[in-house]
Amino acid sequence: MKKLNVGMIGGGFMGKAHALAYAGMPMFFWPAPAIPHRHTVVDVTEELAKDAAAKLGFENYSTDWRAVVNDPDIDIIDIVTPNNTHAEIAIAAAKAGKHIISEKPLALGAEEAKTMLEAVQAAGVKHAVAFNYRRTPAVALAKKYIEEGRIGKILNFRGTYLQDWSADPNSPLSWRFQKKIAGSGALGDIGTHVVDFARYLVGEISDVNAMTKTWIPERPTQTGGVDKLGTVKSAAADVPKEVVDVDDEFISMIKFENGAIGSIEATRNAWGRNNFLTFEIHGEKGSLYFNYERRDELQVSFSDDPSDAKGFRTVYTGPATPYGEALWPIPALGIGYGETKIIETHDFFKSIVDGTEASPNFNDGYRVELIADAILESAEKSAWVKVNDLEKK
Amino acid sequence: MKKLNVGMIGGGFMGKAHALAYAGMPMFFWPAPAIPHRHTVVDVTEELAKDAAAKLGFENYSTDWRAVVNDPDIDIIDIVTPNNTHAEIAIAAAKAGKHIISEKPLALGAEEAKTMLEAVQAAGVKHAVAFNYRRTPAVALAKKYIEEGRIGKILNFRGTYLQDWSADPNSPLSWRFQKKIAGSGALGDIGTHVVDFARYLVGEISDVNAMTKTWIPERPTQTGGVDKLGTVKSAAADVPKEVVDVDDEFISMIKFENGAIGSIEATRNAWGRNNFLTFEIHGEKGSLYFNYERRDELQVSFSDDPSDAKGFRTVYTGPATPYGEALWPIPALGIGYGETKIIETHDFFKSIVDGTEASPNFNDGYRVELIADAILESAEKSAWVKVNDLEKK
Amino acid sequence: MKKLNVGMIGGGFMGKAHALAYAGMPMFFWPAPAIPHRHTVVDVTEELAKDAAAKLGFENYSTDWRAVVNDPDIDIIDIVTPNNTHAEIAIAAAKAGKHIISEKPLALGAEEAKTMLEAVQAAGVKHAVAFNYRRTPAVALAKKYIEEGRIGKILNFRGTYLQDWSADPNSPLSWRFQKKIAGSGALGDIGTHVVDFARYLVGEISDVNAMTKTWIPERPTQTGGVDKLGTVKSAAADVPKEVVDVDDEFISMIKFENGAIGSIEATRNAWGRNNFLTFEIHGEKGSLYFNYERRDELQVSFSDDPSDAKGFRTVYTGPATPYGEALWPIPALGIGYGETKIIETHDFFKSIVDGTEASPNFNDGYRVELIADAILESAEKSAWVKVNDLEKK
Amino acid sequence: MKKLNVGMIGGGFMGKAHALAYAGMPMFFWPAPAIPHRHTVVDVTEELAKDAAAKLGFENYSTDWRAVVNDPDIDIIDIVTPNNTHAEIAIAAAKAGKHIISEKPLALGAEEAKTMLEAVQAAGVKHAVAFNYRRTPAVALAKKYIEEGRIGKILNFRGTYLQDWSADPNSPLSWRFQKKIAGSGALGDIGTHVVDFARYLVGEISDVNAMTKTWIPERPTQTGGVDKLGTVKSAAADVPKEVVDVDDEFISMIKFENGAIGSIEATRNAWGRNNFLTFEIHGEKGSLYFNYERRDELQVSFSDDPSDAKGFRTVYTGPATPYGEALWPIPALGIGYGETKIIETHDFFKSIVDGTEASPNFNDGYRVELIADAILESAEKSAWVKVNDLEKK
Repeated sequence: MKKLNVGMIGGGFMGKAHALAYAGMPMFFWPAPAIPHRHTVVDVTEELAKDAAAKLGFENYSTDWRAVVNDPDIDIIDIVTPNNTHAEIAIAAAKAGKHIISEKPLALGAEEAKTMLEAVQAAGVKHAVAFNYRRTPAVALAKKYIEEGRIGKILNFRGTYLQDWSADPNSPLSWRFQKKIAGSGALGDIGTHVVDFARYLVGEISDVNAMTKTWIPERPTQTGGVDKLGTVKSAAADVPKEVVDVDDEFISMIKFENGAIGSIEATRNAWGRNNFLTFEIHGEKGSLYFNYERRDELQVSFSDDPSDAKGFRTVYTGPATPYGEALWPIPALGIGYGETKIIETHDFFKSIVDGTEASPNFNDGYRVELIADAILESAEKSAWVKVNDLEKK
Repeated sequence: MKKLNVGMIGGGFMGKAHALAYAGMPMFFWPAPAIPHRHTVVDVTEELAKDAAAKLGFENYSTDWRAVVNDPDIDIIDIVTPNNTHAEIAIAAAKAGKHIISEKPLALGAEEAKTMLEAVQAAGVKHAVAFNYRRTPAVALAKKYIEEGRIGKILNFRGTYLQDWSADPNSPLSWRFQKKIAGSGALGDIGTHVVDFARYLVGEISDVNAMTKTWIPERPTQTGGVDKLGTVKSAAADVPKEVVDVDDEFISMIKFENGAIGSIEATRNAWGRNNFLTFEIHGEKGSLYFNYERRDELQVSFSDDPSDAKGFRTVYTGPATPYGEALWPIPALGIGYGETKIIETHDFFKSIVDGTEASPNFNDGYRVELIADAILESAEKSAWVKVNDLEKK
Repeated sequence: MKKLNVGMIGGGFMGKAHALAYAGMPMFFWPAPAIPHRHTVVDVTEELAKDAAAKLGFENYSTDWRAVVNDPDIDIIDIVTPNNTHAEIAIAAAKAGKHIISEKPLALGAEEAKTMLEAVQAAGVKHAVAFNYRRTPAVALAKKYIEEGRIGKILNFRGTYLQDWSADPNSPLSWRFQKKIAGSGALGDIGTHVVDFARYLVGEISDVNAMTKTWIPERPTQTGGVDKLGTVKSAAADVPKEVVDVDDEFISMIKFENGAIGSIEATRNAWGRNNFLTFEIHGEKGSLYFNYERRDELQVSFSDDPSDAKGFRTVYTGPATPYGEALWPIPALGIGYGETKIIETHDFFKSIVDGTEASPNFNDGYRVELIADAILESAEKSAWVKVNDLEKK
Repeated sequence: MKKLNVGMIGGGFMGKAHALAYAGMPMFFWPAPAIPHRHTVVDVTEELAKDAAAKLGFENYSTDWRAVVNDPDIDIIDIVTPNNTHAEIAIAAAKAGKHIISEKPLALGAEEAKTMLEAVQAAGVKHAVAFNYRRTPAVALAKKYIEEGRIGKILNFRGTYLQDWSADPNSPLSWRFQKKIAGSGALGDIGTHVVDFARYLVGEISDVNAMTKTWIPERPTQTGGVDKLGTVKSAAADVPKEVVDVDDEFISMIKFENGAIGSIEATRNAWGRNNFLTFEIHGEKGSLYFNYERRDELQVSFSDDPSDAKGFRTVYTGPATPYGEALWPIPALGIGYGETKIIETHDFFKSIVDGTEASPNFNDGYRVELIADAILESAEKSAWVKVNDLEKK
């Protein structure tokens, strides 16, 4: 069976998730499209890189991502670094002829994303962007219902992504609060997942009209440097503070090209919401509701149910729903974060082996960036913005 | 004990709810501020009026609302008729010196509402508008938490009101789909309840930015004429169709005077949602969630809970929460629609007896109409509208 | 329209619920079978009785229940007093030729219940026992599904009734904790509702095997004397304590005559459960779940749903489900405690006017007492008990 | 870092889960107690074994489990075969001085389990039984609350395990329906997980009183032979049928040595329930509820919450709850089946390296078998059975 060598740039939380997926993918999808080989992992210091290799099961480690990108043994470059590094690594990897999977958001903005898209297209390599939440089986089931017309023409999409890990003003200023590294705040970090859902499930977004807010204008400087999100302890009182220059929250109304309308919201200041990534979709023949916090479940209501037995069904995904044959033998054994990444890895490997386009790919990543840029512009102008008006030539 | 005579104009579904409240209020709130006496009910034909009196327990009936309004025995005029009649009746009742409770929305628009407000102020009578959902004990509990600072300064309000009783294109065109009678569609009928929640819980709304949609542009003519909402059977194929000239759905972003932001949405095209009136509020110290479909419950999350026991609590309202001593002896015996109206009636009667202002009153009804007008104007202009710019002089 | 005069014996919490039902029944069920007239209410002192009449809308009051029972103007005697008084009042009322509705449990035990049953049968009057929870529309919908065969032959019934209003050892010893007044504890007070569900939905119970527990062996003497349940404040430390001689909790396995099996549990020591009256039923073709705390909803799962859309539906009761046409015009406007009593009153009045047997009636009340007695005997003997072995000759 | 070589006997669904855990454990728990090396996998045919090695990432494969058990390179034997083979393999492995982890139930009954326990004790090896569900972080959190006294002395435990993958009478007779291979039906397969919860969270069970039922007395012969549970398609009409000689359902009342009482139920005939493994625990100071279908969550209610903010909290496990630091950086990223196995693997490896007793171990497995035997005996005798009366000398 074919083996594909992976060079993974970055060894943090997201690197762990990807490493688990490389190890586990063939266990679930068998025969696998190809066997992922954890060839080399890169981190910023020798110590971190060595540790990451031991922990994540990589054969080699390095502190020189360029060397790895140009290593002829490497087939795939996996980018799991902060947002501001995606473009440089991806463009170099494309030039070196590597297939690429990049964490999201693809870039700091649409302009940068466009250069990445052009690079992979010029190189003819396969490319994917890691909007893993659409791999949740329940989201794939929603897609199936929609494609089969089971909820009819879509009228409305309401998506939210609510978190609270940084709702405490004393939680430190990690890179996720710095525009030069993250590009934007809640918008890029979590809001783009909702945008990905909207495009995946409903269609292209044509217009946006948004507000943004930075509820906590300054935060204590982060010491240590690791990106631990929720485990970050509040800083001591004497730690100096730095300015937050990205959004904590945004709300946007949206219009789809197909006539549907909707809204998107993301915030990091929703006490009690952990990873509350939801959508509700109303169609002419039914409705869907999904909440990632209960990700084994999709709620669906069909208009043609008998009048005395009408209501939302809680469907637990399993062998009878998308990806289910490959996963666990009965519903509700449990879909975790790992499974979403295993499916993502499978689909990307399959696109490489089959020579098809991955989905979502850099073009999707670019379109999401355009929408994100339009949201920021709309918020600044307090007006509707047409997404295509921002398109990069 | 003092007795107050009620003349109720209208004998439909809402008349039933009000009649139950008049009968039941003293049973719950004892000693009652005053005993409601169901003196006279008015309906459009002698037959309907006579039937309503027998059914709803009124001593007298009439087809002449003006006579009732001017009957010196009557203390209170209760307006439970379609929206386009509220103003004329209320103004006449005010001139006759009657206290007035009107169903919502108060009027067909802010201009009309202003005339009503001026009439009751000139007459010095007590006035209330029947946004009964804020009387749900769980909503009153949310208000208590907020006033006591238990969720801190409010950042965000997200309100929805989703229904499906008219999602079928064959459900008839009742008065609720006709602008000349209803003023607006989902906005006035259900959206105003969400606006009332927003003002009640967070504060005055300063700016709106909205979209509206009429998903079903024409509907079969209604035969019969009664307003049965969900029980209406789909019309036969040969029934002629008429144009719907109001909104089926609207989405609005909102800004509050106190700096909070949020969104409001209402739709009648949400298959599977029955009376899905919800809000989620994020404060600096906690969050609240309420869904009227599970109205005995308020969800609250406090930021200062221990880190290993943090999460939304499902609080069932009961004797320890607002209005609870008067209701049932333990939580979850059950709050129904009737209880919300019983509380509303109590509060209105108390305002009359105590000589205080009712809340919400015609001024609140007028403010809600201003916001509704601003939403329609915003949707038309595709731009932010300042609510106070529409204020009537 | 025919009018039936009600003499209500007792003016506490349950009297309030019944009074609301008498006032509201015709508003919901119209034309009503007959109009309930609140003729006379009885309480233990003149002051209480007078107050009850004013509060509950009765024309007259009395402290002499025997006089009321024998008043020729009275058509119906409604018994809402503590359990130990049901038999004497009911038997006297039967002899006086009155129709009778009694609160549950019907008696202190099966023997007493049998004398009541014989009395009403001898007198030829209509008789009902107030297991109101089976009037919840969602429970009636469960019954409809079962009768229509939509979940197939029933295999299993699991019922619980969990409360916490007396879980605090300092909450006072009301009559509900005294065997001579209450007959039994959680068993009679709440467990009998579950037994009623089991018989109503599945069929006759043939065998039981139970355990009982008294978790709090003594409680402070109750001062005041009113039965406020959840609002009772904990007693001061110096209040003397009295022995609790009834069960706080029981668990029973059950067998049905039709071959189904199951379990029943009730406890007053379930912190966080308020009125957690539930059942889950598994049939050969589907399952049902009901929780009274969310009483607008019935959960149903059908085995023949498509494999990719299988799961519990949350059906909100409304116009399309039993009793719904009479209630509110759309689902989820809200079923409260009042509505269950309104339906109960309607059904009893209808049985009187139509000359049919009420359901549940004194025979049902007697069967429930037999089962309760069998549960106590089983717990004492630590062995299975056949219910019919206890039958009274 | 130390490496421990694993010989895994069995390559089916459970082998996949264990293989993922071996690969992923160090990624989560770092530094790991030791690195699991997937040394050799055994299956019944060369083809299956080879395939399992490739799929599950084992270095070697074999069809001779005895050879693997005696391979001096192997440190750990992992038993993931049908129940009737556990004893022979475990005893041989113990004699060969290997540490052992066995899938549950440990044996076909207590007598067999006792021989296994004696073998590992005699050999002085470490031993574990794979009741993985207690590794769910939410269950570990429940244990933490109990140990810290946060819900007080426990009064009651109610556990259920409800499934429907074999509720269809046409689903084939796999080994799980054959006494000679499985020992018992729902009891051993899923009920033992509930027994494990009860012992883990509350304490030793002293007495049981049970019923069992075989709802589907015969099933089509299974063709193929693989154990696919939920994905098994219904058999064709002409497939011959075989007798089911194990229970489809059992209900048992239980008494704990510490005075608590409760009930346990497991069934495979609960349409709509997928992996509905739940417990509810009432203590003197609070209550707990857990449902594995929503395994990221633990519900807890504390008696000392303020009276106006009392109710079940939905706590999402994460970095602040047990095992959370090792898992994902914020709550609700998602606990799947894999994570429970990764934690189980960690704890077992840690016990080996630290030289402590694993938990649950073969003694726990034996105690569970005693209880299961007592349940079967109780059902047969229709009487209470003392668990210790069955103890093997």
